[in-house]
Order: sequence, then C-alpha cells, then structure tokens
Amino acid sequence: MAPKSRARLERQVAFLVEADKLKTIIRRSPLVDRSRGENSAEHSWHLLLTAMVLREHLAGEVKGCDLLRALQLMVVHDLVEIDAGDTFAYDPAGQETKSARELAAADRIFGLLPGDQAAEFRALWDEFEAQTSPEARFAHAVDRIQPLLQNASSGGGSWSNHAVTRDQVLRRMAPVETDLPAVWPLVLEIIDTFSAAGVIRRSG
Amino acid sequence: MAPKSRARLERQVAFLVEADKLKTIIRRSPLVDRSRGENSAEHSWHLLLTAMVLREHLAGEVKGCDLLRALQLMVVHDLVEIDAGDTFAYDPAGQETKSARELAAADRIFGLLPGDQAAEFRALWDEFEAQTSPEARFAHAVDRIQPLLQNASSGGGSWSNHAVTRDQVLRRMAPVETDLPAVWPLVLEIIDTFSAAGVIRRSG
Repeated sequence: MAPKSRARLERQVAFLVEADKLKTIIRRSPLVDRSRGENSAEHSWHLLLTAMVLREHLAGEVKGCDLLRALQLMVVHDLVEIDAGDTFAYDPAGQETKSARELAAADRIFGLLPGDQAAEFRALWDEFEAQTSPEARFAHAVDRIQPLLQNASSGGGSWSNHAVTRDQVLRRMAPVETDLPAVWPLVLEIIDTFSAAGVIRRSG
Repeated sequence: MAPKSRARLERQVAFLVEADKLKTIIRRSPLVDRSRGENSAEHSWHLLLTAMVLREHLAGEVKGCDLLRALQLMVVHDLVEIDAGDTFAYDPAGQETKSARELAAADRIFGLLPGDQAAEFRALWDEFEAQTSPEARFAHAVDRIQPLLQNASSGGGSWSNHAVTRDQVLRRMAPVETDLPAVWPLVLEIIDTFSAAGVIRRSG
C-alpha cells in the first residue's frame, strides 16, 4: 500500500478505536431491567432501530425525508460525549455550558479522521445540532421518544431520580408532537400515567 | 386514533422495548479499556460507524452497494441473540446449534412487530444471514474487522482468553480480504503481531 493510503487507513482506525469510548458514557436513563444506566453507544443503536420502526408515522415537512441521511445523523450524534459527557436534558446549569464543551469535542474527535472525512462527519453532527433539516428533525424526535419509552418501561427511570416536572417533559417531547403526531397520544398517556403516580411532578 | 392504528403502534413499541435486552447480551470481545465485555447493542452501533468510515475500501462485486440497506442489515443483525445468546465464533459446539436457536429467536422477536413490518425486518435478517447480497457481504466484512480492531486495541481480547489459532483467525477474516482488500495488509500485520507475541496460537 502507498504510504499516503496507509496513513489514511491508520487515521480511520484511530478514530474507530477512539469511538469505543462512547460505550463508557453513562446516561440518566436505565435499561428496562434497571440493572444499570444506559450508555450512549447502545442508546445510539436503539435510536436507529426506533427510527426504522416508527418512520411510517412521520408527518408534514419531515415526511419522506432521506432515511439514510437520518440514520447517519443518529450514528454520529452523541460522539462528542466522549469528551463532553452526557448532559442531562433537565439540568439547566449543564445545558448552559453544553454547546462550548461539545464544539471543542467535535473539533478533536472528528479531527482524528482524514481531512475530507473529518469534514463529512462534522457536517453530519452540525446538521443534527442545527435541528432544521427534515432528517435532523426526525433524528431529534426519535432521540426524545426513545428515552421516554426507556423511562416508561423501567418504572420512571430518570424522571423519578431527578424530580422532573410535567411541563419539562411536555416541552422536551414537543418534536414528537410536531413530527411523529400519530405517536403523540401515546406520549401524553405515558406522561399522564407517571404524573398521576407522582413519578413526574406537577410543578418544580 | 383508530383502534387498529393504536394496536399497531403498541406492537411497534413492544418490539422496541424487547430490543432493549440486546444491551445485556455480552460478547467475548472486551472494550478497549478492558473494563468489561462488549455487549451486542453497542457492538451493532460500532459496526455502523465502521461501515461509514471504511466503505471507500469496498472493492469488486460489493463496491457501490446500497449503504442504506447495508446499515439496516447491521442494525438488526444481532437481535436474535436476545433469545439465542452470542455464539462465540471459535466455538464449534456452539456453532452447530446456532442456526436452529437463531431461527426460533427470529420467529419470536420479529413476530412482535405488525405483520408487514415483521416480514420486512425478518427479510433484513435473512439477507444478512445468507451472506450473498453485496450489502450482506459488506455487513459481514465489517462484522469481522470490528472485533479484530477491538481485540488488537485491548491487548488480545477474545484471542488470548480462548486459545484461538492463527488459521482460525485467518479463515474468520476472509471476507475482509475479499471485500475490503485495502484493509487486508493491516489485518495481516495485526495477526502477525499477536501471533509473534503468542496471543494468537500457532496451532490448536
């Protein structure tokens, strides 16, 4: 192999080995059997499966979006957490510093790849973060419904552990109402059930 | 929502909740930091990322294969392990019963979905298993290179723990030689290094 091609392959492998660390980033949502917290790598896989199963419910501007692009956004969406950690959705202090921490992480982690691929993968992550393309909106809606199902199936998950309110959950789930409207009645039922049980709080 | 649509959504959700169990299926390869064994859900995510990074190296009949289809095969390829467990590649007794165990698992697990989707997802898994379509061949080549990188980066991983021989590893890696030939010299170097160190055995 030519030295240039070899150097390119070595950068690709270094990126893939670094990516292994996403398996050690622990989220606030537990596994359904409550044996441990979910990590961001297996969460990302679960998003892909969820997208494949629920995409028939897409509506409005996101209906007919490019499934390949959407899946690629989901594959890379959490890689920055290797450096920046998982920032809990209902932690205002963490959310304030999240953007700066994740931008620095994106520079370093995608920068491990050969230049053209670094740009290509960074563009995927930037698109996910911007939340404007139909594919990014689909990815975000899935990234809301999956943790909701995770919490609902494990008896409350991150809601019960972190004193989350009904209004917070409703705001968080808004992309599901807009882009997966057929799923919204089920989301409301789940929120009502866990509110009635006191797991999701009425107010802060 | 009409009762029929609601029943359909509930089957989709039941499947997605059941799929969570793939996060508890532990493989023989460790994480790079050797803190624990890799599970099949995070392994599946790592395959998708590996495919996105290495697809430029595809050659021959698999070059230009449908990336979306290949990624979908990788998302579903290990779901049967929820019932059948992970069968170690270098365990002849396990390999003998693997097919029957996994077919029964596919019937049950994909059968949780609504009928049309059960058929669609089962067709993805059947295609992966058949190893004949370009997309299935790509998925299999990635499913060989990812554990090799995992073992190489963790000091030997499943090779050192299970007395695996050089001939076994070479046979196992054959899809990489055929379908990702530009990566093959690196694979040979890794095998040579771990053979010289006595981690991969000369003979059984």
